[in-house]
Amino acid sequence: MMNIGRRGVHYLHTLNNVPKNLTEKGQSRVIEASLTLIRERAKLKGELVRALGGAKASSSLLGVPLGHNSSFLQGPAFAPPRIREAIWCGSTNSTTEEGKQLDDPRVLTDVGDVPVQELRDCGIDDDRLMNIISESVKLVMEEDPLRPLVLGGDHSISYPVVRAVSEKLGGPVDVLHLDAHPDIYDCFEGNKYSHASSFARIMEGGYARRLLQVGIRSITSEGREQGKRFGVEQYEMCKFSKDRPFLENLKLGEGVKGVYISIDVDCLDPAFAPGVSHIEPGGLSFRDVLNILHNLQADVVAADVVEFNPQRDTVDGMTAMVAAKLVRELTAKISK
Amino acid sequence: MMNIGRRGVHYLHTLNNVPKNLTEKGQSRVIEASLTLIRERAKLKGELVRALGGAKASSSLLGVPLGHNSSFLQGPAFAPPRIREAIWCGSTNSTTEEGKQLDDPRVLTDVGDVPVQELRDCGIDDDRLMNIISESVKLVMEEDPLRPLVLGGDHSISYPVVRAVSEKLGGPVDVLHLDAHPDIYDCFEGNKYSHASSFARIMEGGYARRLLQVGIRSITSEGREQGKRFGVEQYEMCKFSKDRPFLENLKLGEGVKGVYISIDVDCLDPAFAPGVSHIEPGGLSFRDVLNILHNLQADVVAADVVEFNPQRDTVDGMTAMVAAKLVRELTAKISK
Amino acid sequence: MMNIGRRGVHYLHTLNNVPKNLTEKGQSRVIEASLTLIRERAKLKGELVRALGGAKASSSLLGVPLGHNSSFLQGPAFAPPRIREAIWCGSTNSTTEEGKQLDDPRVLTDVGDVPVQELRDCGIDDDRLMNIISESVKLVMEEDPLRPLVLGGDHSISYPVVRAVSEKLGGPVDVLHLDAHPDIYDCFEGNKYSHASSFARIMEGGYARRLLQVGIRSITSEGREQGKRFGVEQYEMCKFSKDRPFLENLKLGEGVKGVYISIDVDCLDPAFAPGVSHIEPGGLSFRDVLNILHNLQADVVAADVVEFNPQRDTVDGMTAMVAAKLVRELTAKISK
Amino acid sequence: MMNIGRRGVHYLHTLNNVPKNLTEKGQSRVIEASLTLIRERAKLKGELVRALGGAKASSSLLGVPLGHNSSFLQGPAFAPPRIREAIWCGSTNSTTEEGKQLDDPRVLTDVGDVPVQELRDCGIDDDRLMNIISESVKLVMEEDPLRPLVLGGDHSISYPVVRAVSEKLGGPVDVLHLDAHPDIYDCFEGNKYSHASSFARIMEGGYARRLLQVGIRSITSEGREQGKRFGVEQYEMCKFSKDRPFLENLKLGEGVKGVYISIDVDCLDPAFAPGVSHIEPGGLSFRDVLNILHNLQADVVAADVVEFNPQRDTVDGMTAMVAAKLVRELTAKISK
Amino acid sequence: MMNIGRRGVHYLHTLNNVPKNLTEKGQSRVIEASLTLIRERAKLKGELVRALGGAKASSSLLGVPLGHNSSFLQGPAFAPPRIREAIWCGSTNSTTEEGKQLDDPRVLTDVGDVPVQELRDCGIDDDRLMNIISESVKLVMEEDPLRPLVLGGDHSISYPVVRAVSEKLGGPVDVLHLDAHPDIYDCFEGNKYSHASSFARIMEGGYARRLLQVGIRSITSEGREQGKRFGVEQYEMCKFSKDRPFLENLKLGEGVKGVYISIDVDCLDPAFAPGVSHIEPGGLSFRDVLNILHNLQADVVAADVVEFNPQRDTVDGMTAMVAAKLVRELTAKISK
Amino acid sequence: MMNIGRRGVHYLHTLNNVPKNLTEKGQSRVIEASLTLIRERAKLKGELVRALGGAKASSSLLGVPLGHNSSFLQGPAFAPPRIREAIWCGSTNSTTEEGKQLDDPRVLTDVGDVPVQELRDCGIDDDRLMNIISESVKLVMEEDPLRPLVLGGDHSISYPVVRAVSEKLGGPVDVLHLDAHPDIYDCFEGNKYSHASSFARIMEGGYARRLLQVGIRSITSEGREQGKRFGVEQYEMCKFSKDRPFLENLKLGEGVKGVYISIDVDCLDPAFAPGVSHIEPGGLSFRDVLNILHNLQADVVAADVVEFNPQRDTVDGMTAMVAAKLVRELTAKISK
Repeated sequence: MMNIGRRGVHYLHTLNNVPKNLTEKGQSRVIEASLTLIRERAKLKGELVRALGGAKASSSLLGVPLGHNSSFLQGPAFAPPRIREAIWCGSTNSTTEEGKQLDDPRVLTDVGDVPVQELRDCGIDDDRLMNIISESVKLVMEEDPLRPLVLGGDHSISYPVVRAVSEKLGGPVDVLHLDAHPDIYDCFEGNKYSHASSFARIMEGGYARRLLQVGIRSITSEGREQGKRFGVEQYEMCKFSKDRPFLENLKLGEGVKGVYISIDVDCLDPAFAPGVSHIEPGGLSFRDVLNILHNLQADVVAADVVEFNPQRDTVDGMTAMVAAKLVRELTAKISK
Repeated sequence: MMNIGRRGVHYLHTLNNVPKNLTEKGQSRVIEASLTLIRERAKLKGELVRALGGAKASSSLLGVPLGHNSSFLQGPAFAPPRIREAIWCGSTNSTTEEGKQLDDPRVLTDVGDVPVQELRDCGIDDDRLMNIISESVKLVMEEDPLRPLVLGGDHSISYPVVRAVSEKLGGPVDVLHLDAHPDIYDCFEGNKYSHASSFARIMEGGYARRLLQVGIRSITSEGREQGKRFGVEQYEMCKFSKDRPFLENLKLGEGVKGVYISIDVDCLDPAFAPGVSHIEPGGLSFRDVLNILHNLQADVVAADVVEFNPQRDTVDGMTAMVAAKLVRELTAKISK
Repeated sequence: MMNIGRRGVHYLHTLNNVPKNLTEKGQSRVIEASLTLIRERAKLKGELVRALGGAKASSSLLGVPLGHNSSFLQGPAFAPPRIREAIWCGSTNSTTEEGKQLDDPRVLTDVGDVPVQELRDCGIDDDRLMNIISESVKLVMEEDPLRPLVLGGDHSISYPVVRAVSEKLGGPVDVLHLDAHPDIYDCFEGNKYSHASSFARIMEGGYARRLLQVGIRSITSEGREQGKRFGVEQYEMCKFSKDRPFLENLKLGEGVKGVYISIDVDCLDPAFAPGVSHIEPGGLSFRDVLNILHNLQADVVAADVVEFNPQRDTVDGMTAMVAAKLVRELTAKISK
Repeated sequence: MMNIGRRGVHYLHTLNNVPKNLTEKGQSRVIEASLTLIRERAKLKGELVRALGGAKASSSLLGVPLGHNSSFLQGPAFAPPRIREAIWCGSTNSTTEEGKQLDDPRVLTDVGDVPVQELRDCGIDDDRLMNIISESVKLVMEEDPLRPLVLGGDHSISYPVVRAVSEKLGGPVDVLHLDAHPDIYDCFEGNKYSHASSFARIMEGGYARRLLQVGIRSITSEGREQGKRFGVEQYEMCKFSKDRPFLENLKLGEGVKGVYISIDVDCLDPAFAPGVSHIEPGGLSFRDVLNILHNLQADVVAADVVEFNPQRDTVDGMTAMVAAKLVRELTAKISK
Repeated sequence: MMNIGRRGVHYLHTLNNVPKNLTEKGQSRVIEASLTLIRERAKLKGELVRALGGAKASSSLLGVPLGHNSSFLQGPAFAPPRIREAIWCGSTNSTTEEGKQLDDPRVLTDVGDVPVQELRDCGIDDDRLMNIISESVKLVMEEDPLRPLVLGGDHSISYPVVRAVSEKLGGPVDVLHLDAHPDIYDCFEGNKYSHASSFARIMEGGYARRLLQVGIRSITSEGREQGKRFGVEQYEMCKFSKDRPFLENLKLGEGVKGVYISIDVDCLDPAFAPGVSHIEPGGLSFRDVLNILHNLQADVVAADVVEFNPQRDTVDGMTAMVAAKLVRELTAKISK
Repeated sequence: MMNIGRRGVHYLHTLNNVPKNLTEKGQSRVIEASLTLIRERAKLKGELVRALGGAKASSSLLGVPLGHNSSFLQGPAFAPPRIREAIWCGSTNSTTEEGKQLDDPRVLTDVGDVPVQELRDCGIDDDRLMNIISESVKLVMEEDPLRPLVLGGDHSISYPVVRAVSEKLGGPVDVLHLDAHPDIYDCFEGNKYSHASSFARIMEGGYARRLLQVGIRSITSEGREQGKRFGVEQYEMCKFSKDRPFLENLKLGEGVKGVYISIDVDCLDPAFAPGVSHIEPGGLSFRDVLNILHNLQADVVAADVVEFNPQRDTVDGMTAMVAAKLVRELTAKISK
């Protein structure tokens, strides 16, 4: 039984005392219709970008409003609409720091959300839900030159997303993972899909060749052992001043299918991003993150921004703006 | 072009310089897929309730996250998930004041949201959007004994909802409308779908026989004239102590197809419901509203709760709890 | 030495070690220039209203941003611009509950603020400051048909305002005073101009014939004795349900020069007006206040709204809207 | 295993792998020292009041910062110091509405807090903790004329308090219980000391003859059945307008040892008291509560104010002021 | 027609249907009286400083509460009194980091505000308003050794201020401009006085020889082109780690009339200054700004601190304290 | 008479008109009982740790909820329970950055709070209170291997704590003091125990050999002179970039009894720690503080974390988490 956090999202009420057969048929039809809707939106956006022409890679937002695999609070389920609002907010212009125009659909489109809450309300379990997320990512990748830029949701979503990217491209990717935590427990509180276990699942599945974790400052002995077991490169904050020159000059992805970037907003110090579930002081500054991204040499095939929790944000939505700028600069990185 | 408020929802970027034909075909497929998804969810819930048996009328939530027809702020577009969260929040039990069990699907189900933001992002205009909302309401009503309990969204959504209810039932309904404002301008700031004009549209269309407006305390001369023109019964707050005995003993709906209740959260004094776009002191207490609802004699065929703006709520979500309790007590009123 | 509250207004730094003569001459010129500026603004507004014609009495806002005579917090010094912002805020229409158009200058004009902070920063003491406030009120009354509607500031300003009104009209007025406190100490913490003593000064000066105090719920034995001494009619909240019929049918001002209404925002229960320095539960509802005002039979010659403290308001400014609606309905009461 | 709420109080870490004998001896010494400290503070205050002379009954604050028996949030554990701060806050005078001086120790003294958190941190379980609370209440009652006015804490504390009062006085009392909930579950989530079960414990123990519950608006069928079983007089909010004349003229306690008043702050509508764990709209106004208290004819032997949750209060502590005024007016009721 | 932001300042209602002649004469008198009042305050402060003797340059605050030329929110119109409150707030001592005493009038005086809102309410348009601001700055400079330290307001005020400084000194100055944005659009949304265009006006007018822009991280291609066109030295944040040694050792103003420093509070990362209209992550730390200021070699003839928006500040006014410390350290830089 | 700040803690009402003899005897008994309780808790924890075995030094929390010696706000009196809550908060794991397990009692225990508020309410003055604090610290040190880690409270508590540590160890210690202010006034506002004077008392008493002050950025000429007088090593923020290599490689305590670390939370920039009474921009980052701590070579015999003010914290308690992480990393430093 899921433990519902105070400000969390309810697992909408379940379907009992009803012929299992009837329920299952209905669920299958709902799943199919959900995927059809995502396919049609992706298709329309793909047609649009191809008609405009000239883009080799363009990022396309896919929201995954899922918060129930968090071990603490479930607010990230509310994040995608808030990030979109902040992206287009009139307080800033629609240019990235290096000059790309975000309102050009060849740079950025949007295929909307996976209807996570409604699927759960229909009684669909996590095994099926993870598959639907993977399928949705593949539907975006189907529409060349769209590349998925996924808006979480808690960090559990990175597993089905990276899995889909790797499966679709036919091989592992390199993963640059910015986070306060390694999220690599074998299993957390009995939940193999926990947001604290997603990178264990990714590494087990062979979906990533290299995994670089940056910003780490809350790690247990299990976290360090799992890191060793999977050959993860863990860069802890207590040595960041030493590691900085290396991290601000990364070159990744050679010999594999490309690079995936997963940004947990709590990689930032809470001064820069208070709207997260896990306040862990001593993190990166926003400029540190941009320096790492701007100087990274890589073919970024997909990315995610996760764990923004609007229920912990400031009244004026500072962290929404932070998440939005991460999305904007990732867009700049992906599209070409 | 709508003027986007500071905390509003962005009209996601538009589709230009692309063959119109291509766009239109894609949009049609997206609309069709959206309605299919709502139909499947409604069907599953209808099958479930019928399998359980014994319900003559059971309310079914339908979210309409639409905020752009507001003249001031667009936050109501974020309301439906917050109201659902509050309905199932662990801080209260799942019984209505008169003793109905809300976790019994024969009392309350949920068919999810109309994907308003995603439809707009695909370039679908308000004429088509209003039709999609109407169609969605009809899809719920298709599944006897489900009755729609709509979660706004701004008040503009009441027009397509009441229209659908009336068309589906084959005649007008009586409407009990609780609000600080009459929302009956012929047209507001050039927008015929404005949240300030929805009841003009409803009355013009003949979808309501009687329209009772309760809680009114911000009304212009045009508001009063339109009221007279359409034969609206307007009960202003400055006379509420005199009108109270009448309003706490209403009997409605005889000779028509039933009664529709539309509750704008700002009918309440802002002390009781601060999370609204239009702070208008001098309103009803929460108990006043419950007294009116509890004593109303009527066959309530559908209802809505609109204009809750989570971006103006208290940190701990007091108004979300208020909106949720309105939904819960309306559920008690509808289901039987 | 004034005791500066945490969020208060600083008494800007004083002028020492300088020939007294030099300072006094400069201060006199600053006072004169301040009054000239208020006179010119009042004159312009008076000319405007007279040119439009047809008004017998029209209310004119005069801000008095003074907070240092408060015994607790000094935030009311910041109130006038916030009340003006709320009056004209786009979230409500510019009509009073009974239908007057506020954007008609014959109903409402504004002559701006007395530059209280700047006068104090120039070393002008409270004796002279109180006279400047009185003079400013008279400058407004000079411009027939303008009548002063004063925006406080803490409650100490009512003394120089009522004094000016009475002196200008040539006799006492009746005063309707809504407040949680009687503000009638002979002297509070050694300050005869304290916001807790203003009505002692008014009664001593013979500026009021009758003084009705409504909403009282924090009163000491001195408060009751002073009340008796001056023949004040004190209506305490613990008997409000009994007094209500009387208070909702007042007729005042016959045989005197008119009626003055002084509304301390804390007459309202803090549920309705949290943005005050003195949270005193158990007060009037907003509708209670409107019922008293709407049914009052009187020629209202001037009024004030005081003690709104924006530094204690909710994030979205609920109390600013409350203060603004009080101003709007007082405007309706004054202008004709 | 206790389920720790997000903003709750941690059950400080437990004592394992240590000889049980050693631990138990230490715990006994800590318990004894705790009670000695409370006894000495009560004694000093008792001596003081008796030395001043003339008091027949004077109320004495006893804080019980216990929040872990709440089913939802644990913030009430932080309440006692916040209520004390608000009682003595400079924003209001120290007189009750009917004129008693609170700064007279014959009216109000304070014996401090039961060190609940520290006892739990030493591994003391709830059975022993409840006894310590009862003992502490008796230590206050030992010091005639002190009568306990207990500051919660969650509502679970009313059980050991009422038990102590009844045991000390040698017979049952009448209990006036203001609350949104009946708190009369036989057992809630497996916890017989749950804040939702305290009145079941009280009635079972025979500590109360009559139990009147006022303000009820969240009640399940079990709540109503338990009410019948124990002969509880339950006054639900949906009939409050009808019950008001009765409730505003209560006479209690004849033939028993006196009257106990238990006020759960959530008896108030959340508009009046937002700082509670369980937001349940439709409650009493603050004046409603005062009218009931002021008109009650009774010898009030002890009282409590519980369930104020400072972690949900407004920034400026409105609910702390509300709880403080309840304490002040209860003090007026008790002392003589 | 100005587009009023949600929390903005209303353009107080206009003067219509009245003989233009009458209005214009009144407006001229109001303008003249406004300038007279500023002149008298400046004169008094100048006399004071000269009487004390020994100061070669002393900074004098001039508030310009103007927010309507902002493209997004208008809150900066409320900033000057909040900055003054924070400057004198009891939580910090009145010494600068390098040891100057701020309460010495030879270091810091204040001439109060330009009555911007009241001028606008009298119908005075932006052309005249900009001239009044320029005149006010000159009135301060008239009183040797006072030098203007201007408190905005939005950034549009820098144009009339720098213009006045340059005209008064008889030649261009060097400008050090700290900001997230270059504010150098030729014209923004049709407004040549827009806060996004002030530096285009300054450069066109020849009021600045060198313009150094530091902290830039939101810039469009037009911003870069305009920068080139006017020979602006733009230091973007993405290269700040490289530029730091240069920027922390600036020497400016040789061969011109002196140096002007314009600090837009949003040059800081929003972590350090959340109370701004335009949240743009990735900015300077507070210490970065101080390092630049402290090490700057220059004769600073005037300065401004703009774009602090109190309506977006934290509840406890962190950004007000930040703006105040910028003012304090600028004061240290100016006065000698 | 102490001046009570708006959100401060009331000096609970005093004991007058009573035989002095009677009062003094009662106070002595209360003091004795308080110390007995602390002794018993320390003893139990000491026995526990020794029974578990293997620890040479283990840190033990002692709360000192004292806020009345602050010159501005008194909120730090509420800090200890909030810091404990944050230490054990489920949002982070219980491992320090370098890998120690905090839930091992050999690493961290807790002896609860000195009952400061209750002692003051019983009329105990500051001379006796300071002695009680010193005695309490010694009671912890009595129980080898416990070492005190004190939770303030305002900074005045460091004086009695350091005094006790030095007296107990029989000689001076070296003190590493992180703070925005030197707290070394001879006397502040007439209070020798002021939080602004604690280090003057410590140096006068000879309790510290070296005193290093890091993070200083608000210092008067008296602060610098007192620093010289006592041979304090003051490292000001304006030179931090130069001093960093030295400060990140400290070696302290050789030839004395050990090292004491005192962390005033306001050593951090308010961006990182907004919940403090004295907002002083331009401070250390959280990582700067950790770098200093992690690289310090020293035998840390005791420490404190002071001046966290929960009444100024963000809604979600960011600064509580910051204070808690400081406590956690100090625990790692102390225990071995």
